[in-house]
Amino acid sequence: MLQPHHDGSPLYVSTQEPSLGDVVQVRLRIPHEWGTVAWVRTRSNPNREPRYSEASVIASSDGWDWWEAAVTVENPVHGYRFAIERTDGTRWWLNAAGLHEIETLDAADFTLLATPAAPAWAASSVLYQIFPDRFGRSPAAETREQPGWAIAADWDDPVELEPPGRSQQFYGGDLDGIAAHFDHLQRLGVTLIYLTPVFPGGSNHRYDASSFDEVDPLLGGNAAFARLIDAAHARGFKVIGDLTSNHSGDRHEWFQAAHRHPDAPESDFYYWRDTENEGYESWLGVPSLPKFNWNSTELRRRFIDGPDSVVARWLKAPYGLDGWRIDVANMTGRLGAEDLNAQVRQTILTTMRDVNPDTILLGESTNDAASDFQGDAWHGAMTYAPFTRPLWSWLSEPGSPAGGGIGFADNSVPEYTGRQFFDAHQRFVAGFPWRIRLATMNALDTHDTPRFRTSARPGTVPVALGLSVTLPGIPVIFAGDEFGLVGIDGEQSRTPIPWETAAEPAVSETIELYARVIGLRTGETDSHAALNGGGLRWLHVGEEILVFVRESSEGSVLVLAARSAAEVTLPARALAGAAEANLLIGEGSLRVAADGIRLAARGACFTAWSLRGLQLPQFGAGSA
Amino acid sequence: MLQPHHDGSPLYVSTQEPSLGDVVQVRLRIPHEWGTVAWVRTRSNPNREPRYSEASVIASSDGWDWWEAAVTVENPVHGYRFAIERTDGTRWWLNAAGLHEIETLDAADFTLLATPAAPAWAASSVLYQIFPDRFGRSPAAETREQPGWAIAADWDDPVELEPPGRSQQFYGGDLDGIAAHFDHLQRLGVTLIYLTPVFPGGSNHRYDASSFDEVDPLLGGNAAFARLIDAAHARGFKVIGDLTSNHSGDRHEWFQAAHRHPDAPESDFYYWRDTENEGYESWLGVPSLPKFNWNSTELRRRFIDGPDSVVARWLKAPYGLDGWRIDVANMTGRLGAEDLNAQVRQTILTTMRDVNPDTILLGESTNDAASDFQGDAWHGAMTYAPFTRPLWSWLSEPGSPAGGGIGFADNSVPEYTGRQFFDAHQRFVAGFPWRIRLATMNALDTHDTPRFRTSARPGTVPVALGLSVTLPGIPVIFAGDEFGLVGIDGEQSRTPIPWETAAEPAVSETIELYARVIGLRTGETDSHAALNGGGLRWLHVGEEILVFVRESSEGSVLVLAARSAAEVTLPARALAGAAEANLLIGEGSLRVAADGIRLAARGACFTAWSLRGLQLPQFGAGSA
Repeated sequence: MLQPHHDGSPLYVSTQEPSLGDVVQVRLRIPHEWGTVAWVRTRSNPNREPRYSEASVIASSDGWDWWEAAVTVENPVHGYRFAIERTDGTRWWLNAAGLHEIETLDAADFTLLATPAAPAWAASSVLYQIFPDRFGRSPAAETREQPGWAIAADWDDPVELEPPGRSQQFYGGDLDGIAAHFDHLQRLGVTLIYLTPVFPGGSNHRYDASSFDEVDPLLGGNAAFARLIDAAHARGFKVIGDLTSNHSGDRHEWFQAAHRHPDAPESDFYYWRDTENEGYESWLGVPSLPKFNWNSTELRRRFIDGPDSVVARWLKAPYGLDGWRIDVANMTGRLGAEDLNAQVRQTILTTMRDVNPDTILLGESTNDAASDFQGDAWHGAMTYAPFTRPLWSWLSEPGSPAGGGIGFADNSVPEYTGRQFFDAHQRFVAGFPWRIRLATMNALDTHDTPRFRTSARPGTVPVALGLSVTLPGIPVIFAGDEFGLVGIDGEQSRTPIPWETAAEPAVSETIELYARVIGLRTGETDSHAALNGGGLRWLHVGEEILVFVRESSEGSVLVLAARSAAEVTLPARALAGAAEANLLIGEGSLRVAADGIRLAARGACFTAWSLRGLQLPQFGAGSA
Repeated sequence: MLQPHHDGSPLYVSTQEPSLGDVVQVRLRIPHEWGTVAWVRTRSNPNREPRYSEASVIASSDGWDWWEAAVTVENPVHGYRFAIERTDGTRWWLNAAGLHEIETLDAADFTLLATPAAPAWAASSVLYQIFPDRFGRSPAAETREQPGWAIAADWDDPVELEPPGRSQQFYGGDLDGIAAHFDHLQRLGVTLIYLTPVFPGGSNHRYDASSFDEVDPLLGGNAAFARLIDAAHARGFKVIGDLTSNHSGDRHEWFQAAHRHPDAPESDFYYWRDTENEGYESWLGVPSLPKFNWNSTELRRRFIDGPDSVVARWLKAPYGLDGWRIDVANMTGRLGAEDLNAQVRQTILTTMRDVNPDTILLGESTNDAASDFQGDAWHGAMTYAPFTRPLWSWLSEPGSPAGGGIGFADNSVPEYTGRQFFDAHQRFVAGFPWRIRLATMNALDTHDTPRFRTSARPGTVPVALGLSVTLPGIPVIFAGDEFGLVGIDGEQSRTPIPWETAAEPAVSETIELYARVIGLRTGETDSHAALNGGGLRWLHVGEEILVFVRESSEGSVLVLAARSAAEVTLPARALAGAAEANLLIGEGSLRVAADGIRLAARGACFTAWSLRGLQLPQFGAGSA
């Protein structure tokens, strides 16, 4: 497994935020064992026409040669790869999909992005997802009158999976009820709160907004929203909201104005099937979710474009949201022969940056998402193809069911080996520029999926959580996971948080586990530099065990993830400084022996060690 | 190798030209040996959101079950794949990249195109590429005055590879000189003549046009052009021209008007680096090839948009070209942050269809081209990644040099096994919709590359030619290949045709070989239905030998391609009707034995057999 390696991290690329025309230095490390190298070149592809530049060796250490080449950034998404010829005559290509002896596809090339980057805090975030109806209920909630559609539920009632309970069962969580639990979030160490919709709707999930102009009074209204964000900021949390750019609810004031009223100013906000504005396009044919028609300039003005738009308003005082997660980003603006998606997402970003450039924009796209995530708008993805589904497939009990929201072909989990986990992960992340990958959500589960624990093999919850925290991306905790909740589908996963169980030994232990693992990203450890943007090098991919290292100049983190007892011996040169590794977390063992570095797990386990950083010539110094 | 199979051909898809909203039946065949199947579904991805439909068995024959499902075409490029679950619990995905046990990428899904198709004749064409300065010289050519840049050459002078001879050496071939050799083309059996540029320029290749308004008088001018096309049509040949949409020459009347004249009407046709219109962008920095700026509406009007444009004019009487090959299509309209490529290519197609919908539009894009070739404009690609480079890599003498134009990383040919040929071919064709693949050029070489024969392993010219004629796509003969010419780079390959050698035994034999192989597509054989659009199923991929079958309801063609002596035994069920196979061409042997179908080659060889067609229930009949 000792192979040439490059990734988008600062060890290998001289700047994370190049501009058009910049000359960027890129580095490739090649282990001596791999073979004698005749030459190394980068192949860029500006304006889709290959251009090569020569690399030369700028350093040699620990059995590796480091090659460096200069790449001029010619397009906003500037792809590049390495061509390597060995003295044995074999020729190799390295891009983000791996090492190839045959030619490889452009879509998996490494990329330099000359476009606006996500805020600096994005890549060091740990996200905590809250479904407001089910998180916490303030005293005021008890006194609010419930709407006609709601079926009142007590906090400890089971979630009903079938209509009418599904979507209408109403637990009455509210925004003040969230702020009341900030101590818990702080104990966990999360840094970024993601609230599913807070606008009023006709359901408990509020993805069927009836307005974007006020926060649902059932949640405490605008004042509670401002209070919540203020309180969060005071604790150092960022808060992002959730917008449905694909559709509104059929109770939405715009839809109500336009439905059966072809002359209404909002008439062109939707896709009508007849001249009477009677029938209309909707999300997957669900009539309560009419689809927006983004050809409308007025819709853009009200919703996404400019300082008076919905997108802008909630980022400004007195609210100050730190960004948006966009629902069904993949379908937004797409219908039949029309594709306005790029226009919509770019307009949203421009509006956000004009109000506050320190905000983040995440787009939901739960399958093969990469082609929409090339740095022109979305900072990162909420997606299940690169991490969530491969993780479930490796770590679930064989034959486990899995509700539709997670997106398996048959509502059941296929069975993967560790190699298949790696191959699927690699295949889907390869299309994301490194910077986008760092802001992409690594979720075990969300409000739309079953909860991972439900079908996890024994002992693998820490493995899954550990991988979400140590692989590149934003770890995601769906509120309640840390209470050991289970759920067989996205509906059941929306269980109210059982706060009263927090002190029970099993729950308290789980919360403690979450806090310790999350601490690797945000706690008092020396692992931050490596995990919040360090390189990723896979050292071993086996059926039962995965080993990788995140590396930076300030420190590195070695990770062992095993789903059952397993051991592996790595070549000594796989990793410098292994003998001085410090255990950060977990029960795996590391021993430097004569034949290499022995790693072992006595059962399912997640273990991480810190290592010294890599010292290399500064960029600019090594290459004359 | 007996696996589930689907492709875009009429055996598997109920229509080749669906419209938006159509319900299309798609079929999948699964061999019984592969395992017992629990269910089959199609996964479509309309508006980037997965949608499944159930398949059911509609026929069983020769050891295969045929499954069918209905797919509604929801986008102009409608992707789909198959999900298969076996009763052993394993789940599989099949898309154009092959069969996968892990999730797979959307870009390699099968596709239905609800966009204008290429002319019906496209997929049954055999293309013959002519470089006018080097093909034939009419008596009139002897009397023409040569331009100042030209360095006169006699027809049998060797081609000079270095400047000033390179580009300026002038042999004086002309259009009447082409028409004089139509007997030769007819003997070969080609159907489509592709002329590299015929507009005047400052070089022998004419890619540096000084005007698009007249055919170069050195070639005989407009009248000769009209004569040539008329004569071609009278013989049943189609003729396409070559346009440089990326750049003009610096002698071009538009450039001359605009250079150093910021107030000229043509000023916005180019990218200037200063306000004096002094410095400018050009193709790969070559000053004689200034790059067009497609933001200019006036440039579009004159060049590509509407019935008075250059694009339209030469398709109309008295000329009547049958289409265009567009030079450097990949770079056209792309520079820095700007990408107008889709606008330009779509405008060209619209203009062409308005003048004559029976014309073809091919785009040059010699690397990973598929993302530009999704059916919105280009009917097919002139590209080297799917076929030309893998073919060279399998069939060249190890270590052969190869001039820059073909696009190897080091001007030398890497060495591939048959498996690597297949993997590279499959990887690059997977991104092309089936219909586009049928109109994409399978070239052994072109005017920009060395000639294949130059470095071919012994006996492999028929193998390479045979693959170009029998794999999906338009076979390409670069004029002179049939004379056994060689050339170490794109310049040397532009050798004048040595007509006087045609009667020499070795040359005559080569011409005869070309005619016989081309005849499989256009001659008096029963192989046309299979080769001009039939399905493609690979039966064996080995280091030295490749076996595949092209299949249709009217007949099938079995192909064996070997680079050295080799044999293989296929399972009997790989192929129905093998016992009644009729040899079409070649020295390979086929024998149906007790243990299967034995194919053998005693050395490098290309062999093809015709087989009966596949009889299946008609679409619509089988599925209630």
